[in-house]
Amino acid sequence: MLPVAVDAMGGDNAPDAIVAGARRAVEERGIPVVLVGREAELGDTGGIPVIEASEVIAMDDDPGSSVRTMKDSSLVRAAEAVRDDVASAMVSAGNTGATMASALLRTGRIKGVSRPAIATPIPGPSGNPTVLLDAGANAECKAEWLVQFALMGSVFSQTRFNIDKPRIGLLSIGEEAGKGSPLVKETWGLLDAVDWDALGAEFVGNVEGRDLMGDEADVVVTDGFTGNVALKSVEGTAKNIIAALLEAFGSTPEAQAASEQLLPALLPLYQRFNADSYGGAMLLGTKGVCIISHGSSGEEAMVNAISVAAEMVESDLVGKIQTAVNA
Amino acid sequence: MLPVAVDAMGGDNAPDAIVAGARRAVEERGIPVVLVGREAELGDTGGIPVIEASEVIAMDDDPGSSVRTMKDSSLVRAAEAVRDDVASAMVSAGNTGATMASALLRTGRIKGVSRPAIATPIPGPSGNPTVLLDAGANAECKAEWLVQFALMGSVFSQTRFNIDKPRIGLLSIGEEAGKGSPLVKETWGLLDAVDWDALGAEFVGNVEGRDLMGDEADVVVTDGFTGNVALKSVEGTAKNIIAALLEAFGSTPEAQAASEQLLPALLPLYQRFNADSYGGAMLLGTKGVCIISHGSSGEEAMVNAISVAAEMVESDLVGKIQTAVNA
Repeated sequence: MLPVAVDAMGGDNAPDAIVAGARRAVEERGIPVVLVGREAELGDTGGIPVIEASEVIAMDDDPGSSVRTMKDSSLVRAAEAVRDDVASAMVSAGNTGATMASALLRTGRIKGVSRPAIATPIPGPSGNPTVLLDAGANAECKAEWLVQFALMGSVFSQTRFNIDKPRIGLLSIGEEAGKGSPLVKETWGLLDAVDWDALGAEFVGNVEGRDLMGDEADVVVTDGFTGNVALKSVEGTAKNIIAALLEAFGSTPEAQAASEQLLPALLPLYQRFNADSYGGAMLLGTKGVCIISHGSSGEEAMVNAISVAAEMVESDLVGKIQTAVNA
Repeated sequence: MLPVAVDAMGGDNAPDAIVAGARRAVEERGIPVVLVGREAELGDTGGIPVIEASEVIAMDDDPGSSVRTMKDSSLVRAAEAVRDDVASAMVSAGNTGATMASALLRTGRIKGVSRPAIATPIPGPSGNPTVLLDAGANAECKAEWLVQFALMGSVFSQTRFNIDKPRIGLLSIGEEAGKGSPLVKETWGLLDAVDWDALGAEFVGNVEGRDLMGDEADVVVTDGFTGNVALKSVEGTAKNIIAALLEAFGSTPEAQAASEQLLPALLPLYQRFNADSYGGAMLLGTKGVCIISHGSSGEEAMVNAISVAAEMVESDLVGKIQTAVNA
């Protein structure tokens, strides 16, 4: 397998945690990796080769213009490595929009795909995550694009999470078919007309925001505006509740002692709800595997992201999406 | 004060929990109440008068047609009581759409208001909730309506939560002014042009889904589709995390014992995040105070809802909204 190109400069913990995660992916899991960035700043890479890139796109840089003007940035060079068959996939915890733009501009869209979408696994109580897409690539969408998102999401759910017959839900504000915005109503009709059986999937109709962390659907389709708002609502709520819990656990010596007793019962819960274990979001619809990790990714998240990238290359996710979209 | 009209038949726990909550509002807080529903089914009302209504709109009935055809339903009769100056406000834990439709059709809109909106307080770590509107009344919105939602929301935040200078945020997918859907971009321009200082409020620009439970804004404005998806994403996440926690607390005898030790530290947390303490959502923009409680409301939530209704009548919320909208 060609190495996974890892943007060493992207994310809140770059480059140290990125390099550490890359080293563990190589050493513990035997995955070939190439780092992309300013070699002089990376420290000991443990022998991992480096593609030199002199520029860094910052987290808050404008995605479109930074990718156009910063041609020697780590993100653009990582995408070029995939395009030029030097790498098999790219992984970045940097600027989401710029990661998407580099992948799209350098590797291009899969034939037949109208728009790539960001697919984000949301952990849930059942152990199987719900894949939400589009989580923010396209603020405005056409109904036809949402149908393609459903196709790509179901292939991803099958390939990545071994879901036998993914249940596809359409995000709306009521479960009945007539409920929602004009876009939702139009999309409902198109989704209902697809022969999902032939694709090994199932359309379960409208789902609601509360089902994102539930077990009503394996894939939830929506436009990138609604999807991003919903995703960040889920993340913000989880973060605030957990922060408040930890505060309560440490509020008195008695609470502290009791919470230590609870640790064995709470650890599996942490594992189940920890989004880091999924390695991040995935850009679906471009001609290369592209993983968009959370900006806050640490070493562990990077190991997982690189592993997922390698798995998706080996199981030919891109080829499977191309087949499904052109069926 | 005229009595608060309480729909005795609406909600998952009607009529028992509704009647029990109404009795406590009268007995413990001295608030005048009139129940609306099938008197024969209400049990001992403790002397609370009843407006007889023979029909009940079910939770899943179509709002528009049920309000038009079920003229002797508890919801329609409650709204008529407000219209006819028999009651000062209405409270229902029943069908949200039908509650809104009855209030709108029977009491009418405040002069100058284009569309009423549902304002839902979302509890947060700071103790002050964030008011989200529109949480589902209008699936499609114009930018001008969102500006009115901001006006109504800031009056509500001042009146209901004593926020001195409410910070108004516009829900989007990036904090920069240029980020978001065409509706968001247009609304941003209109909101930025309002003289908020004169209204005792402040426009803080775009906020994201993660800020709904945070402390970035006191009022968050969006269209009813996005608002409803976001609200249910928050609610679903909180519910799933709490359910998983309770499961972990009860998973072994050791965990059970430790979690009992933790109770004193966890109780204040429960109070802070318990949406029931706010009594429910509020329909803003109609000519009467109308509280839309959660379908799952129990006795305690009803006591709070009736208290909030009475407070909003006494502090003339409707008059203040009319002044702000026509300023």
